[in-house]
Amino acid sequence: MRSFESKNRTSTEDIKSLRLITAIKTPYLPDGRFDLEAYDDLVNMQLEDGAEGLIVGGTTGEGQLMSWDEHIMLIGHTVNCFGGSIRVIGNTGSNSTREAIHATEQGFAVGMHAALHINPYYGKTSIEGMISHFDSVLSMGPSIIYNVPSRTGQDIPPRVIHTLTQSPNLAGIKECVGNDRVKQYTDNGIVVWTGNDDQLHDARWDYGATGVISVTSNLIPGLIRQLLFEGKNPSLNSKLMPLIEWLFQEPNPIPLNTALAQLGVIRPVFRLPYVPLPLAKRVEFVKLVKSIGRENFVGDKDVQVLDDDDFILVGRY
Amino acid sequence: MRSFESKNRTSTEDIKSLRLITAIKTPYLPDGRFDLEAYDDLVNMQLEDGAEGLIVGGTTGEGQLMSWDEHIMLIGHTVNCFGGSIRVIGNTGSNSTREAIHATEQGFAVGMHAALHINPYYGKTSIEGMISHFDSVLSMGPSIIYNVPSRTGQDIPPRVIHTLTQSPNLAGIKECVGNDRVKQYTDNGIVVWTGNDDQLHDARWDYGATGVISVTSNLIPGLIRQLLFEGKNPSLNSKLMPLIEWLFQEPNPIPLNTALAQLGVIRPVFRLPYVPLPLAKRVEFVKLVKSIGRENFVGDKDVQVLDDDDFILVGRY
Amino acid sequence: MRSFESKNRTSTEDIKSLRLITAIKTPYLPDGRFDLEAYDDLVNMQLEDGAEGLIVGGTTGEGQLMSWDEHIMLIGHTVNCFGGSIRVIGNTGSNSTREAIHATEQGFAVGMHAALHINPYYGKTSIEGMISHFDSVLSMGPSIIYNVPSRTGQDIPPRVIHTLTQSPNLAGIKECVGNDRVKQYTDNGIVVWTGNDDQLHDARWDYGATGVISVTSNLIPGLIRQLLFEGKNPSLNSKLMPLIEWLFQEPNPIPLNTALAQLGVIRPVFRLPYVPLPLAKRVEFVKLVKSIGRENFVGDKDVQVLDDDDFILVGRY
Amino acid sequence: MRSFESKNRTSTEDIKSLRLITAIKTPYLPDGRFDLEAYDDLVNMQLEDGAEGLIVGGTTGEGQLMSWDEHIMLIGHTVNCFGGSIRVIGNTGSNSTREAIHATEQGFAVGMHAALHINPYYGKTSIEGMISHFDSVLSMGPSIIYNVPSRTGQDIPPRVIHTLTQSPNLAGIKECVGNDRVKQYTDNGIVVWTGNDDQLHDARWDYGATGVISVTSNLIPGLIRQLLFEGKNPSLNSKLMPLIEWLFQEPNPIPLNTALAQLGVIRPVFRLPYVPLPLAKRVEFVKLVKSIGRENFVGDKDVQVLDDDDFILVGRY
Repeated sequence: MRSFESKNRTSTEDIKSLRLITAIKTPYLPDGRFDLEAYDDLVNMQLEDGAEGLIVGGTTGEGQLMSWDEHIMLIGHTVNCFGGSIRVIGNTGSNSTREAIHATEQGFAVGMHAALHINPYYGKTSIEGMISHFDSVLSMGPSIIYNVPSRTGQDIPPRVIHTLTQSPNLAGIKECVGNDRVKQYTDNGIVVWTGNDDQLHDARWDYGATGVISVTSNLIPGLIRQLLFEGKNPSLNSKLMPLIEWLFQEPNPIPLNTALAQLGVIRPVFRLPYVPLPLAKRVEFVKLVKSIGRENFVGDKDVQVLDDDDFILVGRY
Repeated sequence: MRSFESKNRTSTEDIKSLRLITAIKTPYLPDGRFDLEAYDDLVNMQLEDGAEGLIVGGTTGEGQLMSWDEHIMLIGHTVNCFGGSIRVIGNTGSNSTREAIHATEQGFAVGMHAALHINPYYGKTSIEGMISHFDSVLSMGPSIIYNVPSRTGQDIPPRVIHTLTQSPNLAGIKECVGNDRVKQYTDNGIVVWTGNDDQLHDARWDYGATGVISVTSNLIPGLIRQLLFEGKNPSLNSKLMPLIEWLFQEPNPIPLNTALAQLGVIRPVFRLPYVPLPLAKRVEFVKLVKSIGRENFVGDKDVQVLDDDDFILVGRY
Repeated sequence: MRSFESKNRTSTEDIKSLRLITAIKTPYLPDGRFDLEAYDDLVNMQLEDGAEGLIVGGTTGEGQLMSWDEHIMLIGHTVNCFGGSIRVIGNTGSNSTREAIHATEQGFAVGMHAALHINPYYGKTSIEGMISHFDSVLSMGPSIIYNVPSRTGQDIPPRVIHTLTQSPNLAGIKECVGNDRVKQYTDNGIVVWTGNDDQLHDARWDYGATGVISVTSNLIPGLIRQLLFEGKNPSLNSKLMPLIEWLFQEPNPIPLNTALAQLGVIRPVFRLPYVPLPLAKRVEFVKLVKSIGRENFVGDKDVQVLDDDDFILVGRY
Repeated sequence: MRSFESKNRTSTEDIKSLRLITAIKTPYLPDGRFDLEAYDDLVNMQLEDGAEGLIVGGTTGEGQLMSWDEHIMLIGHTVNCFGGSIRVIGNTGSNSTREAIHATEQGFAVGMHAALHINPYYGKTSIEGMISHFDSVLSMGPSIIYNVPSRTGQDIPPRVIHTLTQSPNLAGIKECVGNDRVKQYTDNGIVVWTGNDDQLHDARWDYGATGVISVTSNLIPGLIRQLLFEGKNPSLNSKLMPLIEWLFQEPNPIPLNTALAQLGVIRPVFRLPYVPLPLAKRVEFVKLVKSIGRENFVGDKDVQVLDDDDFILVGRY
C-alpha cells in the first residue's frame, strides 16, 4: 500500500538525530472525544520550547484507550498541522501483529515520519515470535523499538535488537530497562532514547544515549531541552528530580494528566481507567510548580488545586 | 473536536470557485487493499492536467466499499501529499447521521478542505429528517451537498437546499437531476457543479454552473478542462459524447475501472460488486481512445484490450 | 468459517413455509444504544400474536443505522432468547460485497436461520455484478433476496432471480415492485413474500404469495395474521388500509417509530436521520387506534399524543 | 442495554460451583479466519470429557488477536451451539474501560453466562483506577476477576478484591500468583480458580481452590477432571508435570497450539506473533503423548511430528 510521494519522507538518519521527543498528552472534551484545540496548543508549546519530535498516541498519549481510527486520525492531524516543524512518530505498535501491520501502514500513508513499535505485551510470545512480529512492520518505514518490561511483562533481550539492526529502517531503541542496557547498545553504535526521565541526564551525558522520549517534557519542555543540549547540569537535574518522582508515583499518565489540568492547559477530563491523583498530591504539585517556577511550565494561567468535583471521568465515549 | 490550526483551512469561497473537480478513482492491489502508488500517479496526472479539486472516496472512488478507517486514511494521505496543490473534498457523507458526523469530524481533523454530503440513501427520511441530517454536519466546515436521486431513491428538493443556504459553510450543490434544476439554483446565486458529464458543457455555458464534479476527467482531464475554461466548444463536446456514453452504459465506476485498467494506469483489480465490462465493450474502448487520441488520455502506455483472465475480482479484503 | 453444529440449523424449506414475518423495530435508550428490554417485549408480543419469523436489522429495524457489531449482536441476542420459538432472519445484506460476506458469515455463526440480501443500493452495479454479489453469499445458508427499487435505485430483474434459483439456499424473494411481479415468480414456483403491506391480502390470496414481510405487524400482529391465515377478508383489509397508508406517508420507519412510542411500548428515542411525524399526524394515529380498537394493537397502555418535547433525537451514539 | 429474558440467565452461585473450566483454544483456517468446525469439535471433546465451563477468547484463545466483532461472534456462537451444556464465560475484559464496557454489554446480550475481567495491563492504573475499572463492568452480570501480573505488569492486590466482593456479581478470582495467595482468599470465603496448571492439584486439595481455569485441559480434559474430582492423586499429578512444563516453556498458547496441531485436531495455522515451537520440542511432545497415553488426549488421529513447512503463519487476516 506504499506511497512514494516524497513530501513527508524522512530518512532514518533524520530520526536518529532527534534528542528531545515528547510523548505528547492527548486531551479530551467532556464527552471523551479528543479536544483538538487543546491538543494543538500543547503541540505549539512543544514547538516553541524546542521539542524536535512527538510520540502520538503513546502510553502517555493513551493510545491504549483509542480506537484505531481515532489514533490514525490524530497522527494524520498532527502531520497535517505540524509535520513541517516537528517529527511525528506514531505509536502504531500493538500486541496483535495484524493491528500493528494495519496501523503502521495507515500511519505512514497519512505521513507519519516514523513508527514506534512495542513487543507483544500481555499476550507475549517467544523470541522467534517477537522477531517475526517486528519483521512484519519494520519494512514499512523508519522505526523505533520500545522496550518497557514493567508494562509488557517481557523484556526485549539485546539479541533481538541485534537481529533487528539488519533492517535499515531501525532508527533506534526507546529503552526503559536502565542505563547499563543503554550503554550496551550505544557502545555498539545503536541509537537509544531513554524512556526514563529520571535517568535522562546521565543517559545523555554518561551512557551515550541520543536523547529522551519524555513524559516530563509535556510540562517543562524548555528545561528538559536544557538538560539535553547545554552540557552536563547535575544541579538542574537534581532540582527537577522531585517533580519527576511526583510524575511517576502512580502509573503514567495519571500524574501528568492531573498536572496539566491544574496548569489550565487541558480540561480536567479523564478516560477511565485513569483517575486523578488525590487532593494531597494535587496540593504537592502546586508547590512543585512554585519551587521550579511557573514560567518554566507550559501555559500561562495560574496553577491551581482542583477539587474532586472539577474532574470528569468518562467510561463510554 | 475542532482544530483551529490554520495551515489547511480553506474558505467556503475558495471551494465555490473550483471549476474542475475530479471524482478520483481508488486503485487496488491484488489483495484488495489500496494501491497508493497508483493512486498518487493518478492524482499527479490530475494535477498536471489542471484539475483543481478531488472528491476522495466518492461513488466513483468507491467510498461505499471502504471501511471508514480506510476512507479517512485516504483523505489524510491525499491532504498530506497533495493538499498544497489541489483541494481535497472528502466524501464523508453517509445515510447514517452518526457515521456522517464521525467521518466529517475526522476528515476535517486530517485536513480535508471540504466535505461532500449525500442525503440518506436507501434508508431515506422525511424532509425534516433530511434537514436535521445536513444540519448535523454543516457546521463542521465547507460543504457540498450531493443530489443524485437515481442512486439515493429520493430527490433533495430545492426547498431543502434553500433552507441549507442559511449556513455560511454551504459551498454549493453537486446536482445530477439536470440542467433545469441547475438553472433554478444558479438563478438564485447558489453555486452548482453538475454531476452529469454529458451535460457539463451546457451546464457551464448555458445554465450558470460553476463547473463539474466529473468522472470522465479521470480519463481525459485536459479535455474536460478545455470544455470548462476555454469558452463554448460544442464540437469538442460532441466529439467526447461517445466516450461519455460508453462510461455510463453501466453503473459508474464499472466502465471507468475497465478503462483505466486498459490504459495501464491501474492494476485490473475490482472490488465486488463491481465486475469489468465484457470483452466487446472493452474492444470498443480501445477504438474510442484511438478516435479521441491516446495522447489526450492519462498514462503513457499503449491502450490494450484485456482478457477476462487479466482481471482480479476480490470479495474479501 | 462454517459450523456444522446442528442445533439451530433450519432447512430452506422451513423458511419457505413462513407466512407472517415481521420486520421488527429496534428500540433505543435515551443515549441511542439498544433498549433490549423493550426489544424483548416487542418480540414477545410478536410471538404471542403469531408471527413466525423476524427480520432483524431490516430497514424497518434501522440496520442502516447500526454498526455491524451492534447488528450481529442483536441477531445473536434474538437467536439466543427466542430462536427456539421464532425464525430469526438477519438482514446481513449490504451494498458492499465484503460487508455482506462478513456479516452473513457472522450471522450464521451466531445462529440466525436465514439471511436477507439486498442488491447493491446506491453504489449499484451491472447485472453480472449483481449476480456475483449474491453468489458470494448464497452458499452460506438459507437466503431471501430483497427487491425494493424505490430504495435501491435499481430493480433486480427476474432474470437475475431465475439465475439465483440454481442455489438450493434460495428460500424466496421479498418483492416490493407489486403483485404482477409477485405472480410472475409464483407462477414459476418461486416463493414470494410481498414487502408491501397494502398489497398483502391480495398477494396472498390472488397472486400466490406465501406471505408478507410486514411493517404493520409491528403494531397489529394478530390482525395481519388473520389476513394471512383465515381466508379472504376484504372487509378487514379495507378497515386496515387507513392505518397502512398512515404508516407509509413518510419513509418507513418514521411513522412506525412514532406510533410505537405513542403506544407506550418503546421510548420516544429516534436515531437521526429519522425524526417523529408532526403533531397533526400524531393526533391522527390516536384516532386510527381508536377506530381499529386499542386491543388489536401491541401493548396495554393507553395510546397517547406525544408532545414535541417528549422525543429525543440522537446523532452521536 | 440489559435484557431480562431469562433463558440463559445463570446465577453467580452457579458460576461459583464450576470446577473445571477450560480456556479453550481458537483454531484458524489457512487465511486466518476462525475454523468453526474445528472449534465445535474441540468444544464437543471438552463436553464429553467433563469440562463444565469455557473461557472464550482468553489469552489461550488469543482474544488479544481478535477484533471485538470476531470475539463477540465467537461468544454468541458458543452460547448458541453449546450454551445448554456448558457455561460460557466470555473474556470481555480489556485494558480500556470503554472496550470492557462495550464488550461485556454485548457478551451478556448474546447470552454468555459470565465475564472474565482483567486489570488494565500495559497501560496500568492506580488502585483507585483499578477499582473504577472493575466497577464499570461488575454490575452487568456474573464476573470472574483475573490476576496474572506476569502478563499485566501489575498485581491486583487483595484489598482491591476485598472491595469488589461487595458486588453480588463477583463469582470469584482466577489467580496466578500462587497458592499462598489462593489460600488468603479461600480462607475468607472467596472462590478461587487457580490459573496455574502445575499448582491445580494442590490448589484444589490443600489451598481451598474451587478448581482451575486450565490450559492443559485443552489436551487432556479427562485427566484434569480426574485431578479435580476424584480425590488427592499426587501420582497422577506428578505424571502430568512434564507435559505441563512442556506447555509453559514458552508463553502460552505457543506450545498448546503446536500440540493441538500435532494431535490433528486443528489446522497448523498460527496468527502472528505466535509461531510454532522448534522441531526438537515438537519431537518431545510426541514422546510425552506416548508416555501419558494417546487415548488420554483429545482427538483420535495418530500424533505426529509436523515439519516446519506444515505450519502457516498469518499476519494479515
